[in-house]
Amino acid sequence: MSFDGEQYPGVQAPTSDSQGFRLNHTMLRVKDPEKALAFYSRIFGMRVLRRLDFEEMQFSLYFLARLDANEQPPEDAAERTAWTFDQRGILELTHNWGTEQQDDFAYHDGNAEPQGFGHICFSVPDLDAAVAWFDANDVEFVKRPDQGKMKDVAFVKDADGYWIEIVEAARLKQLGD
Amino acid sequence: MSFDGEQYPGVQAPTSDSQGFRLNHTMLRVKDPEKALAFYSRIFGMRVLRRLDFEEMQFSLYFLARLDANEQPPEDAAERTAWTFDQRGILELTHNWGTEQQDDFAYHDGNAEPQGFGHICFSVPDLDAAVAWFDANDVEFVKRPDQGKMKDVAFVKDADGYWIEIVEAARLKQLGD
Repeated sequence: MSFDGEQYPGVQAPTSDSQGFRLNHTMLRVKDPEKALAFYSRIFGMRVLRRLDFEEMQFSLYFLARLDANEQPPEDAAERTAWTFDQRGILELTHNWGTEQQDDFAYHDGNAEPQGFGHICFSVPDLDAAVAWFDANDVEFVKRPDQGKMKDVAFVKDADGYWIEIVEAARLKQLGD
Repeated sequence: MSFDGEQYPGVQAPTSDSQGFRLNHTMLRVKDPEKALAFYSRIFGMRVLRRLDFEEMQFSLYFLARLDANEQPPEDAAERTAWTFDQRGILELTHNWGTEQQDDFAYHDGNAEPQGFGHICFSVPDLDAAVAWFDANDVEFVKRPDQGKMKDVAFVKDADGYWIEIVEAARLKQLGD
């Protein structure tokens, strides 16, 4: 028998109505796209699949992903836009023009009050090597793997202060037991 | 030549230091897991891959995903925990125990002030059919496809009020032009 989902109060079996639905992206607003793009491209190896500009509304969207070896986005921009929206696990960064020039401007990270959104998470093949890579690039830590109650889990901050959890899947088998 | 990412100020070429990194999940806090699980399992067809309870800290984590036909999570719970943290595009819901019993408790959606996190997004094969499915289930809309400047894009609210964008990839080829 195949795994069919853990059962808890509220959980219902999927119907055909949601067939083909895919969790495509998470959107975060960023103050300065140059800093955000430098962070996610250098530290996490993400590529910009597509930038979409909305001049009338004065904002730009940047869709980022890590490309697996078997992923080949189309060269054609319009085709690549459609391809981007058909993927899973994309990061969308929204830049409202001009915020990068406001000294006192900052976005809310969701972890200070009022709480809501918590973090995004990258899985890495080697947590210790990832921590060394972050330190070599002066990435700010919220929590190192050896701090706090949850060992083997780190949290760093991105260029806007959003939290990014860092985990090594193989080290988390007993989590929550 | 293969697509290597659009180039904008700040963008750097990935190095081998981020090899194998994967955008694993997005975490949102939810007030009442029964309502949140009912919403995401019924409306979006997601399954609970794993619940992790942290009794000492009084919270539970629920990791949800839509399972593609070729995805087969391990039956064994510990193996499935590791499998979960190795995936891409997972949704993590955090329940701090007791919030579901507080009448005046609500999480911040990130779109009201103070802004930060914006939304998650599901790609669907047929936007019109998806809208009909949401209406049949009394899902609340932030914006229907025919409202506002961005046609062919809908936003609905989840059980906690977080925004979920709904797109049909094939209808977005000219977006941003």
